[in-house]
Amino acid sequence: MSLSMHQASVPVFVRMLNNLSAILKTAEAHAEAKKIEPSVLINDRLAPDMLPLSRQIQIATDGAKGCVARLAGIEVPSYPDTEATFAELQERLAKTIAFLNSVPADKIDGSEDRTITLKVGGKDLNFPGSAFLLNFATPNFYFHVTATYLILRHNGVQLGKMDYLGAA
Amino acid sequence: MSLSMHQASVPVFVRMLNNLSAILKTAEAHAEAKKIEPSVLINDRLAPDMLPLSRQIQIATDGAKGCVARLAGIEVPSYPDTEATFAELQERLAKTIAFLNSVPADKIDGSEDRTITLKVGGKDLNFPGSAFLLNFATPNFYFHVTATYLILRHNGVQLGKMDYLGAA
Repeated sequence: MSLSMHQASVPVFVRMLNNLSAILKTAEAHAEAKKIEPSVLINDRLAPDMLPLSRQIQIATDGAKGCVARLAGIEVPSYPDTEATFAELQERLAKTIAFLNSVPADKIDGSEDRTITLKVGGKDLNFPGSAFLLNFATPNFYFHVTATYLILRHNGVQLGKMDYLGAA
Repeated sequence: MSLSMHQASVPVFVRMLNNLSAILKTAEAHAEAKKIEPSVLINDRLAPDMLPLSRQIQIATDGAKGCVARLAGIEVPSYPDTEATFAELQERLAKTIAFLNSVPADKIDGSEDRTITLKVGGKDLNFPGSAFLLNFATPNFYFHVTATYLILRHNGVQLGKMDYLGAA
C-alpha cells in the first residue's frame, strides 16, 4: 500500500520519453510540411541565454538515466551529446528508454534511504534516495521535457496538452 | 522502505509552489526595475493559442489542490480565477499551500488503489490513485510551473534553474 521507488521512476520516465518521441515526430512532420529546415527547430531556444531544443532532450535523457542508475547503484551510461537531427534525437530517446527498462526493479526498490551524491557547481550534494528522486531528479526531468514541448509550440508546431501527458 | 502517497504529493507541490512564489517576486522586482507594466508579464504567453502566465499559475495551483483533495477523498476547494496582479497571484499560491498543508497525511496515505474519477473533455476517466498521481497530476503540475518560469525567462527576467528547483 505505497509507491515503490521503481514505480515512481522508471515507468514515469519511460512514459514521458515515449511522449517526447511522438512530439518530435509531429515536429519533424511539421517542418517537412512547412518546408522548415529541421535545424531551425532543433537549435531554437526560448531566451538567448537558454539551451536549444537538442540540449533540452539531451539533458532530459541524462536526468532520467542518471537518476535510475544512481538509485540502482550502477554506472551512469555516458552518451556523447552529438545529436543534431530528428533521427539522432529519436535514437537518443530510444537508447535511454532501453537502458531504463534494462535496470531490474529490485535494484531500485529500497533506495529511498540510500545516500545519493551529486556534483552540483563543483560541490558534493548528498540526498537520501527519496529526496533525490522527488525534489531533484523528477522536477528537473519535467523541466526539460516541458521546455522541449514549449520551444516547439512557440514555433507553431500543432501540439496539445495530451501530446505531453500521453494517452490516459 | 517505500514512498507514501503523502510524501509524493503534498511536500512536492508545496516545495514547487514556494519556488514559484520566489520566482514571481523576482519577476515583480524586474518589472519595477525596468519600468515594465506588471500586466505585460502576467498576460504574456509563449504562443498565441497558449494560456498566459496568470492562467499557468491558476492551473498549477488547481492541479495541486485537485490532486491532494481527490486522493484524500475531500471536496476540492474552488477558487474564482480572478487574479490579475502579482499580489493576487501570491495570495493564490499562499492559500493553495495553506490548503495542501491542512490535509492530514493519513487521509492521503493508502490512496494508491483508490479509484479517482476525472472529467476530461466531457468523459469520465478512472485511474487508481497511484496512476492519477504519477501519470497525470504530477506531469501536469510541473508543466504549468515550468511554463510560468519559461514565460518569464522569455521576457528577460533573470532566473536560473536553481530558482525552479529551490534550495537543495
